[in-house]
Amino acid sequence: MKIVFIGAGNVAFHLSKALQDSGFTIGQVYSRTKASAKELADVLKTRYTTDICSIEGDAAVYILAVSDDAIERLCDKLTTLDGLVLHTAGSVSIDVFKGKVKNYGVLYPLQTFSKARQVNFSEIPMFIEANSRENLQKISKLAGAISQHVFYASSDERAQLHLAAVFCCNFVNHLYSVSAQLARSARFDLSVLKPLIIETAKKALSSENPKEVQTGPAVRRDDKVMKKHADMLTKQPNLKKIYQTLSDDIIY
Amino acid sequence: MKIVFIGAGNVAFHLSKALQDSGFTIGQVYSRTKASAKELADVLKTRYTTDICSIEGDAAVYILAVSDDAIERLCDKLTTLDGLVLHTAGSVSIDVFKGKVKNYGVLYPLQTFSKARQVNFSEIPMFIEANSRENLQKISKLAGAISQHVFYASSDERAQLHLAAVFCCNFVNHLYSVSAQLARSARFDLSVLKPLIIETAKKALSSENPKEVQTGPAVRRDDKVMKKHADMLTKQPNLKKIYQTLSDDIIY
Repeated sequence: MKIVFIGAGNVAFHLSKALQDSGFTIGQVYSRTKASAKELADVLKTRYTTDICSIEGDAAVYILAVSDDAIERLCDKLTTLDGLVLHTAGSVSIDVFKGKVKNYGVLYPLQTFSKARQVNFSEIPMFIEANSRENLQKISKLAGAISQHVFYASSDERAQLHLAAVFCCNFVNHLYSVSAQLARSARFDLSVLKPLIIETAKKALSSENPKEVQTGPAVRRDDKVMKKHADMLTKQPNLKKIYQTLSDDIIY
Repeated sequence: MKIVFIGAGNVAFHLSKALQDSGFTIGQVYSRTKASAKELADVLKTRYTTDICSIEGDAAVYILAVSDDAIERLCDKLTTLDGLVLHTAGSVSIDVFKGKVKNYGVLYPLQTFSKARQVNFSEIPMFIEANSRENLQKISKLAGAISQHVFYASSDERAQLHLAAVFCCNFVNHLYSVSAQLARSARFDLSVLKPLIIETAKKALSSENPKEVQTGPAVRRDDKVMKKHADMLTKQPNLKKIYQTLSDDIIY
């Protein structure tokens, strides 16, 4: 089954490799920038183009792995395709394709991707949606070839999951960044926080609900320590605000 | 070398076990509540008391593993001891002992402890401080017997590290709790977020600074997605506030 990748960023990089490793043929890679298109095409040993009008018309599946805004723009260029057109975005409704593309759907891998980091696709949850039962089955087969965790999710449900990911990935990473900065101000680096960061993640994931394993001054309403921390952050009003906002919600 | 534990909570539980496993003798456990004192003493196969005046006077080391407030209260009962008196708190200054105890110091293990979860002490960073060079050496030996990562930290530095721990442990756990709640509203549970949570921690820890690997709508200034997320949280003003406070600081 021939697949064309539209986009050559982090998601395209990992998803196309995983599909190729599972036996699918990546026939072509499109990207606006030649360097990106060529880089991914070289990895996959396939063709590439930077001209959206030169996308090959005979693929069974077209996977859009581009920014949210680009999905909408690119749809208008894909109206003549017979193949199944998918996007991979968490926060974009399936309706972005409506009235533009014949066969369409969504394949959302819930993971954070960087080119330099290997990921084990078989463990990544994949959330799928389609404009017909037949297309949903096709996407289910495609996703099932690389992941053991394929779920149907409506666009609204997928948006909720994407928002959940912002909290437990993007915001968590920012808190790591803040704590690294605080450790540096005490002459230490992130490495002294490593066992704590790993144990915190494992403990939460081994619980039914992370709320049950919440610890720290806020949950035990230790006003003395919270006051001391607020005082320590006087010169960093942004951090003080984060401290108070999160503590307030833990107490609440 | 005989050690007496004052306190029988999570820190006392794990620290006393680790010290015993490294060849130290835990001679006695004190706790206000009989059930706690007996539970830990049974695990350690040692004596216990609930009467602070019955603490054995011939131990080389007394380890206070109690709440911050209790440290101050208990100090007044330990003035006659010749042994080295330590506390294990991140946010309490060494000066809590000043003018009350003869030989004193701090042994702060930077980790989150729960009775039900095993921890590998050899990897846990231990921050130590003492009222004399001689006592610092004693604490260094004690800490070095159970951990490969023993560092000197002043009370101010230790307070900064404790604050860093609140951000990367307590606050991160709260964000896990929020994301679990958001996933539930989309019919899914925490398990679908597991690969993302683990990869986020590993990616940050493999970086020099988590700031370099920050992803998500805020860092790429994707106002459209941030607006959509704010709208989704209209009925949860607390979460909306967390979303905006953290996004603002990422953008800043």
